[in-house]
Parts: sequence; structure tokens; C-alpha cells
Amino acid sequence: MIQAGVVGATGYAGAELCRILSGHPEAELAAVSSVSFEGKALSEVYPAYFHMCDMICGTEEQVVEKSDVIFAALPHGLSQELAAVCWKAGKVFIDLGADFRLEKEEEYQEWYANSFTHPELHKEAVYGLPELFREKIKGKKLIANPGCYTTAVPLALAPALRKGYIEKDGIIADCKSGVTGAGRKPTQGNHYPELNESFTAYKVASHRHTPEMEQTLSHIAQSPVKLTFVPHLLPVNRGILATCYARLKEGVTMEMLESAYAEAYGKEYFIRLLKKGQVANIKNVRCSNFCDISLHMDERTGTFIAVSAIDNMVKGAAGQAIQNMNLAFGLEETAGLKLFPPAF
Amino acid sequence: MIQAGVVGATGYAGAELCRILSGHPEAELAAVSSVSFEGKALSEVYPAYFHMCDMICGTEEQVVEKSDVIFAALPHGLSQELAAVCWKAGKVFIDLGADFRLEKEEEYQEWYANSFTHPELHKEAVYGLPELFREKIKGKKLIANPGCYTTAVPLALAPALRKGYIEKDGIIADCKSGVTGAGRKPTQGNHYPELNESFTAYKVASHRHTPEMEQTLSHIAQSPVKLTFVPHLLPVNRGILATCYARLKEGVTMEMLESAYAEAYGKEYFIRLLKKGQVANIKNVRCSNFCDISLHMDERTGTFIAVSAIDNMVKGAAGQAIQNMNLAFGLEETAGLKLFPPAF
Amino acid sequence: MIQAGVVGATGYAGAELCRILSGHPEAELAAVSSVSFEGKALSEVYPAYFHMCDMICGTEEQVVEKSDVIFAALPHGLSQELAAVCWKAGKVFIDLGADFRLEKEEEYQEWYANSFTHPELHKEAVYGLPELFREKIKGKKLIANPGCYTTAVPLALAPALRKGYIEKDGIIADCKSGVTGAGRKPTQGNHYPELNESFTAYKVASHRHTPEMEQTLSHIAQSPVKLTFVPHLLPVNRGILATCYARLKEGVTMEMLESAYAEAYGKEYFIRLLKKGQVANIKNVRCSNFCDISLHMDERTGTFIAVSAIDNMVKGAAGQAIQNMNLAFGLEETAGLKLFPPAF
Amino acid sequence: MIQAGVVGATGYAGAELCRILSGHPEAELAAVSSVSFEGKALSEVYPAYFHMCDMICGTEEQVVEKSDVIFAALPHGLSQELAAVCWKAGKVFIDLGADFRLEKEEEYQEWYANSFTHPELHKEAVYGLPELFREKIKGKKLIANPGCYTTAVPLALAPALRKGYIEKDGIIADCKSGVTGAGRKPTQGNHYPELNESFTAYKVASHRHTPEMEQTLSHIAQSPVKLTFVPHLLPVNRGILATCYARLKEGVTMEMLESAYAEAYGKEYFIRLLKKGQVANIKNVRCSNFCDISLHMDERTGTFIAVSAIDNMVKGAAGQAIQNMNLAFGLEETAGLKLFPPAF
Repeated sequence: MIQAGVVGATGYAGAELCRILSGHPEAELAAVSSVSFEGKALSEVYPAYFHMCDMICGTEEQVVEKSDVIFAALPHGLSQELAAVCWKAGKVFIDLGADFRLEKEEEYQEWYANSFTHPELHKEAVYGLPELFREKIKGKKLIANPGCYTTAVPLALAPALRKGYIEKDGIIADCKSGVTGAGRKPTQGNHYPELNESFTAYKVASHRHTPEMEQTLSHIAQSPVKLTFVPHLLPVNRGILATCYARLKEGVTMEMLESAYAEAYGKEYFIRLLKKGQVANIKNVRCSNFCDISLHMDERTGTFIAVSAIDNMVKGAAGQAIQNMNLAFGLEETAGLKLFPPAF
Repeated sequence: MIQAGVVGATGYAGAELCRILSGHPEAELAAVSSVSFEGKALSEVYPAYFHMCDMICGTEEQVVEKSDVIFAALPHGLSQELAAVCWKAGKVFIDLGADFRLEKEEEYQEWYANSFTHPELHKEAVYGLPELFREKIKGKKLIANPGCYTTAVPLALAPALRKGYIEKDGIIADCKSGVTGAGRKPTQGNHYPELNESFTAYKVASHRHTPEMEQTLSHIAQSPVKLTFVPHLLPVNRGILATCYARLKEGVTMEMLESAYAEAYGKEYFIRLLKKGQVANIKNVRCSNFCDISLHMDERTGTFIAVSAIDNMVKGAAGQAIQNMNLAFGLEETAGLKLFPPAF
Repeated sequence: MIQAGVVGATGYAGAELCRILSGHPEAELAAVSSVSFEGKALSEVYPAYFHMCDMICGTEEQVVEKSDVIFAALPHGLSQELAAVCWKAGKVFIDLGADFRLEKEEEYQEWYANSFTHPELHKEAVYGLPELFREKIKGKKLIANPGCYTTAVPLALAPALRKGYIEKDGIIADCKSGVTGAGRKPTQGNHYPELNESFTAYKVASHRHTPEMEQTLSHIAQSPVKLTFVPHLLPVNRGILATCYARLKEGVTMEMLESAYAEAYGKEYFIRLLKKGQVANIKNVRCSNFCDISLHMDERTGTFIAVSAIDNMVKGAAGQAIQNMNLAFGLEETAGLKLFPPAF
Repeated sequence: MIQAGVVGATGYAGAELCRILSGHPEAELAAVSSVSFEGKALSEVYPAYFHMCDMICGTEEQVVEKSDVIFAALPHGLSQELAAVCWKAGKVFIDLGADFRLEKEEEYQEWYANSFTHPELHKEAVYGLPELFREKIKGKKLIANPGCYTTAVPLALAPALRKGYIEKDGIIADCKSGVTGAGRKPTQGNHYPELNESFTAYKVASHRHTPEMEQTLSHIAQSPVKLTFVPHLLPVNRGILATCYARLKEGVTMEMLESAYAEAYGKEYFIRLLKKGQVANIKNVRCSNFCDISLHMDERTGTFIAVSAIDNMVKGAAGQAIQNMNLAFGLEETAGLKLFPPAF
């Protein structure tokens, strides 16, 4: 059994990692750490885990020592040092934070006000979006797991962009996220009475996930892509819905688009291309590693609309991280991840 | 006191009309009708109204007879005949349905599969969006009250369009609505366990409000405007958030936009232009007739983003209808409508 | 116009006071204070209040100076000193906290770990539950406004207890409250993702409102009453539902109970006795000062069941405080409080 | 592999059965039926099931033919005939409806207005609450699966009652259920805008689960037990919280109660006895087969309070049905049921 450790296990992504790993046939949870809850059982923090995962939170060092693969679910900026330790120790390191996602240091500096402390490691890091970059991930030891929006949006647009069916400018990603994306720490904005029955946009056209999406889409388009990204906060726990708009190139038909998506994703276990007439819904992917995608066209205005839905904590975080682990260790890619979304 | 009647009083818009009218200083509820609940008290249908409005639902005829102004909150297609009756009787008729909203019969036929049964009345009808067409509404007897999306989107875009600051093509209106917009009749999609914790788009680029928005914006721009409209369903009761995107013309600055909106709306009681850094939120307009608008710019892509929020049942239906009544009767426009939104 | 001031205006009860006072025909908001937001406008804290109440938060002293009546919405323990200042200045003081609710200092010490710093003031204080103690409140200058549970439960049980129709022991009050009752300060338990889709009891048989309920019910029964009180937290913003159980004395019939309640509450504007077959629901009293009560009987076990519903922030806090102000100043008791609950 | 069939697969309990069975190591879904959706794939009814369970709904007959065990998730009254068919064919029949739950025909007639059409089968039927009646269930072919409330309440009270620590009269079960308990069919009361932000009791002291609970508790107490049962409807999808009150016999201490529960449930996989200071919460058992129980005492009034939480669709329906299947076939009782509840 692969020994898996989780650093930052008491945050939402960390807790979800522990839960999903408990059902993995070839990996098992070896150790967990938490700065805030060191010495406490995970089930004291999450009573839902009582009797299922009562492991005591230790230190980062203990996790590294006991694990073959270390998942880091840390605030941005805290992963580089840990990655260096793991790299030296020959361990696989999968970072759920942003430290290794951006390839260009100047972008990292601009959006995160931080620099590359270990530039040599950034050369080793691969971007862990398997449906787009699978071959690069296999067997790697340092994987930057994408963020939630940055999974949902590129998956929705990649096939159309790769085929050159849509214009590379004027793309709009209007996204709506469940509240768990904002983390476990209580804030005024996420206090129940303030968020309940509310809905708004935030960080309008200024969210840090913007350059990450552009980087991915530029690789796919093989030339620079810019987009306008506006995230919104939904009064639900889980899920991201990305409604993506792009101008269609002349002569592109719905059939051509459907073929492009079928070709790109037809064999992907975790992507479900919906049938005509259906629209992706966050409800249908809850607690699963699926990304549902529906394709639409506004013929009146020549606009392509792709709607994608993921569970921000699974395909948008913990599930995809385990998918990357499976690729890194040469396991079946779906191992431990055939999660059946509940109907309600 | 103006005698006000509500046809279709047991639907959500009708019920909201009765509630708001109860606080009007110069109008009072004279009669209500309901096909489904004839003979029953409104408070039997809505127990919240017990002791506040126990009026018995009668027939359409009774409402017309007893009222100076008739509000029709009927399914689309049922208003034209009633409008003719009211017109003949010299009453003011305010239609919350779609029958008189579209000026061109061919658009009405295309989107509603219905025809103009009283073309002469359509010539008399005015479109009741006071902040854009106030002068045309004053003193009129036949008013088409706009739909909810068709209030939120044009108000968000009109000043920029009027000044020619944005391109007339490529406009995108990504809208999110509370569930009351879908009416009181139970459906599978709005059954609590199915809608709760869900979020999706519907009628993607094919919703009937599209031509209505284009009609309004074309009047403002004084040339044809087309837009892509995608509505989504939020798991909340009330509210519409419209996130509108348009390409900026060269040289247009944030200051120019802010001036345009201040000029257009600075004196409007019901429009609140938010300060820089704030974003419109449906929570802040609940149970009020306000339309909150915030302006944003994506300089990286040259995109203008206007976000507007209304209560779909007030500014998007009953409140605006009463605002139109006030204009029709020469009352203070805000009479009965200075509704203070609760903080939570 | 009566000048009304609110100390602690940025908490939920304080904010609700400001909102309801804005519609009062004979009182107006004179000043507000907030320790946390001094110098900020109320509408910066609650953007819903923008343009409706942009008053700047000042100090406690400023509020006292400018006001005829001071509402204190402060954490428990902070009101006694302020009450003394107001008393000396001849102002009316209405305390929404617990400092003056309990008559016996030993109970206050036991449940609040605090003592009576101004015992002479405690003798002047009246308990402001108008439907039970109206005559004592009229014209008074120091009023202890009841808590939310302690309004809902005594109103549900008082008529049966006064008539001696139920046993005085073995009473159970199983209550369920909306989240605003826990205040505006973010906590882990009220963080959206943790509370959403959750439901539990808290402070089981150990909540501070217990002695307050017993005090009220003992006055009504004219002999000591003890009860078991278990509060639960509902994932809704507003409302308290109290399901109260008591053993019926022999020979008591439903008709006798209905008569007792009709006699006690038939003329009360704010109490709505529901018709047979209906059950009190928090939805129907939202944003209103109503207390809905339904009566039920389990003949199989000889159990009386009274269900009451209030809006915890209105009849359970701000609304009742204004009702008390009206009594203190000799105004119409319903002035400013004929609030029409929305249907949805 | 055991071939398992589900009759009524498109209802909530049926759909949940299909989902949980998909993860069972020794059983597989052989066939499903639905009167309303015959000929359609289960994933057309529940898009969440797309690619996970696309089985086509057939007829009841087809299910019986293809299956070793038939789960019936039918409206009350429709199971007896089907049970007879299965019995004759030598199949195991597990009924999620009420037809075989009550032992006395007069109670069935009184509460369900129906009679025993196959009295000989009622003699064969066992009541499938494994933690209380395990030995009777093993190897049986006709099992009446308890309802949701009737699982939560007896499990909460049984150990105290068995030991004689509480009085047998005066027991109160104040229960709160998620909406899925009311089924998939849209109703006015469960229409999203009407249920959202609402909370009320229903069928006060007259719910059909009352005699079923009394039957179970009377078996445990070995003498007649009556209780007062009031269900409430929570605006959440899943879960039942049962707050149960009983008078303590003199001399009974918390330690005695804790020992009784530890003795009764200490080895039960699906019952989690919470530690002192914790309270059962429906959140912590979602999507799992757990029943969480916390014990409390009101020393002031001599009242025992037991709070239990289950997922109404798992331990209260589908999960327990599979637990019963495991017992019927001599499998490991937890097979396919070690479901890890998500933290959020």
C-alpha cells in the first residue's frame, strides 16, 4: 500500500483528501498534520469522521517521514519549502496550493506578491490537469494541482480552442462557486445569516485564478489567450458552475463542436458530455470526481456557450489530487475515485 | 383613495402586489380574483397574510367593476382580452404579463406563439420601465410592466449604451434568478430536495425575455442591439443578479462611465449606484424596490462589466407595477414604495 | 417626535431596531452607537441600508444625550451601568440584554455569573412582555425586554397555565431558532458550510433562558413552575418555533383550551390564534411582530401541545422593544409595528 | 454475486438503494422497475447517475424474475401482493413500505385504513431493526424495513427502557426530518419558495409512525409503552433528529445511563455513542448508515433526554434495508455499508 500523508488536514481540502483516501484500494492514510489542531483527532474537528478517521494530527515532519506521497493543503506561499524537503527525501509531492501552478515567476509575483524560492523545483513541477496534460504527469514527483475555477473553465473550453473553432480574445468565464471554496475559517461574509439568501460577484476581473486559466488555455491554443473572469459566491456548500462564452469562428456548426468534444473527452472517465437539451448542474456532480459539460450555441449572436460543473472540493481539489497521485505512481487513474454522486 | 384591483392575486406577483398596496398612502386594495381559489380568502392561500389581508378572491369581472386600476398577474396570453374590457371601461390597466411588452407582432409570434388580438390597444400601450421611459408613462391607461430580467439588464447597461461607450454587439447578460420567478406552481425542478444545493443554467440563449431586452436597449442606443442572454436558477427565494459584459470602445475610462451613470441615475430614488469596491448583491435589495448597480472594468481585456441586483418580485414585478400606477395617476412616484430592505 | 437612540446598533437586534423605527409615525432615530464601528455609517456595515439609513455610529454618550428613549442591544452584563446613567438623566431605557430580566439576584448570579450592581434599579425595572404584563409596563422608564425563547414559550403556555388546565411540572419546551439569534459575530458553528444542511440541539437543558421562562410562568401560575428547555439551531435566518408539551389535567377538553386562549388573546393585535388544522410556522411571521399560536392535543396520552412561532428579531427582540416603547410613552401600542409578513 | 432488484427505483428510497448497492462487494443490481418511468434509464430521472447507473426501468415482474432479493420502495398498501409473489418464488423480500410493519391488523386498519390481505405472510414477516432484533432477522425471507422516525426514536430510547431507568408513560418524541422523507412528488408545501426559510410541525400527535414506535418500544419494555410523537419538517434534504424526553426513575444517574447505552450499543458498528458535551447532529451522519446518539439529563426536572440523528434515506431507509439483506443472506452485516459521511 502506498503511504499517503496530508499536510493541512483540517482544512476543507485536507479533510476531503482523508475521506476519499479511506476508500482507495492501493493507498492508505499514513499521517496527517495541522498547525491549528496538533494533538487533536481529525474527528474532534469534524465529528462526521468519528469512528471513520480518528487519526491524531501531528507535525509536517511526521507526515513527511511516514509517507510516500505528501499532499499539501496549505495557504498559498507555504508549499515551496516543504516541496524542497520532500524532493530531497525522494517523496512524491502534490501541492493543492498555488505555489507551483504559474510557470512565469513574474506572474506569480504580480498575482501572489511572492517569488520562486526554489527555481530549480519549478522546472520539475508539472501542472496536474490530467485530461489536458496526462502524459506529462505520469511518474512525476512534483505536481501542482490546479485550483477549482482553473479546472472547470479550461475543461469547458479546451476542445473548441484546440480546434480553432472560437476566437482567442473576448472569452468570458462567468463562474459561480459554493462556499467551501473560501475555506474553513469563519468570516463575516460567510457567516450564515449574511450569506444565506444572498448572491453576488466578488474580485470582479481581478481573481488570482485568471493567469492560471490563461496559461492553460494558451498551451492548448498554442498562442496567447486572455479572458475575463468573474467569480460569484453561491449559497451552497459544494460545486462550481462555469458558464463560458466565446465568439464562434465563421462556419463552425454545433456538429463540429460536438465532434471536437467527443474526440477530446469521449474516453475520459471523469468527463461526462451531456446530451442535447441537458445543462450541466452542480447538483449532479456533488461528492464525485466528475466534470459535466454541456454545449450550447447562440446562433443569433454567433456565440459559443460551454457550461461545466464540478465539485470544487473533489475534481476541483482533493479528487483531482488523488487522480494525479494515481498517475504519478502508475496506478489505474480511476483508482479510489469512482465516486457515485448522490441524487439529492 | 384609488381603488386598486388584482387579477391573479394568488400567484406570487399578485400576492406581493396585495402586500405592498396595503402600505400605500393613496391607494387601497378594492378587490382580488383568482381562478384557482375563487371563494377563498387570500390568507387561506398565504397564511402569512392572516389578519393582514383576509379578502376573499372573487372573479375578474368583480375586480374590474370595483377598481380604478387593474393589475393583471396572469399567465402570458390571457391579458389582451381583459385589457380591452378595462380600456372600454376607462380603467387603468397594468399588465404584469408579456402580452403588451413587445412592439413588433412578429417577435411576439416568434417567442410566444401568439398574435395581437387587439392591435389598436398595442398602439396605446407604453412600456413601464420608469427610469428609462418615465415621460411616456405619465397619465397612461395601458402599461406593460417589464419582466424581471428585462428590468435588471437594461438598467445595468443603458447609460453606457446611450453614451456610446460600449460596442452594440457582443453584449452578454449572464443572469441568476431566485426561484419565485418560476411561479407558485410546484414542479419537479423546483421541488425542494431537487433545487436545494443545486445550480444550473436554463433556456440557454433561448429565453423569451431576450427580444424584450433587445427592444429596450435598441431604443436607448437608437440602433439595433443584440445580446446573448443566459439565465440561471439560484437556490434562494428572491432576487436577480445580472452580470453584464460589453466590449469597451477605445479611450473610454472608468471615470467616464461613472459620470454617465451618475448623470443618468443620480436622481433616481430606486437606483443605488454603489461605491467603488462594492458589488451589487441580491441580499441588499430584498423586499425593496431598489435596483443596485456596480460598475467594473477589466482593463486587461477591454471589457466593461455592470452588475445589477433587484428583487425579482418587487422592482422586477409588483413594486415596479405600483411605481407605474403612481406615474399613471400623477402621484408621487415613490408613494408606498419606500421599502426598507432588511439586513438579514 | 420621540427621539430614539440605539446603543449597539450594528448588532442584529440593533440594526433591526433602526429599520423598524424608520417607519414609526411618532418616533425617529436620533443617534446610534457601536463600539466596533464608531465613525462608520450603519450602511457601511449593512449595505442593504444604503440610502435608507446612512447615520454615522457615534458613542454611547452621544446616544444618551440626543435621545428620549435609549434601546440597549449590548452583550449581557454591559447594560446596568448605562441604565443608571439613563435613569439619572430621566430617559426611558429599554434593555434588550438580560441584565434586568431576572428578579432574583441569585438566579442572575447562577446563570450569568454576574451580580446586581445597581439593586435599586432592579426594583424599578419591569419585564416587558406586554401581552402578559401590559399594565405594569405603561409609563415605565426602565424596561427589560424579554429574550426570544422567553417570549415564544410563555405566550404559548400562559392561558392554559393560568386556568389550571395543565400540570405545573413535567412541562417541556422543545424550541428551534434561526441563526440570527446567535448574533452577528462569525463563529465556526455558524460558518455557512458547517451550518447549512445541519441541525442539532445545543445547551441541552442548560440554556440561560430557562430561569427567565420559569419566572414568567410562575407569575402566571402563581406558584413555582419548572420546565425542561432544549433549544435547537435551524439553518434559517429568522424565526423561533416553540413546541411546548404539558400534561393535561383530567376533564380538560380542546374546547376549554380554545376558550381560554381566545379569552386571553382574542383582542391582542400581535397574537394570531390559528384555526383548527393549521400549525404555527416561522415562515408566516417573518419580519413581523406577530406571534402565531396553534393548539393541539394528544388524547392517547393526555398531552397538551402548543406551538408558537415568532420572528426572533422582531417579536423576539426589536419589535417587542418598540411595543414596549409605545407603552412607556402612552402611544398606540401598535404604532410602527403593523408589519406585514411577506408570503415568501 | 447476489442479484438484487429494486421495485419503485425512481423514488428517493429506491434511487438511494441503487446507489448504495453499486458499491456492495457481494451483491449487484440486477433489475429496476418504475411505473412512472418504465422504459427510461434511471439516469434520465436522476442525471447525477449518468454513466454510473444507466439501467432501464422495467416492470415489477422483470425485477422479480431476475433477482434473488427484491427491495420494494412502493407507496403503502402495494407491497402485500408483491410479497406473496416473491414468497412463492422463494425470493427474499424486503419491504421499505409499511405493509408488514405493524403486527396487529387492527392497528394497521386504524392508521392505514387497510387490511392484511395475506395474513399468513404477516406471520412470517420480521421487523428489520437489526440493533434491536438482529437474531430474528438472520436468514429470513420477508423483512419489514422500519420507517425513518421509527428507527431514530426506538434506537434513542431502547437501552434506558430495557433497564427500566425511565417511566413508560409520558415519553415525548419531538422529531425533525429533512424533506426527502416526503418523497419525490412535488407538492405545494415542498415547493422551494414555500419551504425555504420555513419550519413547522405537521401531523401533530397523529402521524402513522406512532403505533410502530410504540410496538417496538413495548417489545423492549416487555409491557405497553405509549408516546407523544410530533414530527417537524426541516428545510434540509436529508436527516432526522429525534429529541426524546422521558421521566427518570428515582436514583438513576448519568453513569447508569451511559453504562446501559455502552452495553447495548458498544459493539454496534452503525451506532456511534457521542462523548459527553457533544450533541447528535444530522450533518454528521449524512449519506452514511450511522445513528449518532447523545445522552443528556435535566437534573432540575428529573428528565432524561436522548438525541439521535440518522440519515433518513440511509439508516432510515435504503441503508438499513441493505443491512437487513446482509443478515438475511448471512453476509457480513456491514458489507457495502461502511459509508463515510462527508464533513460538509
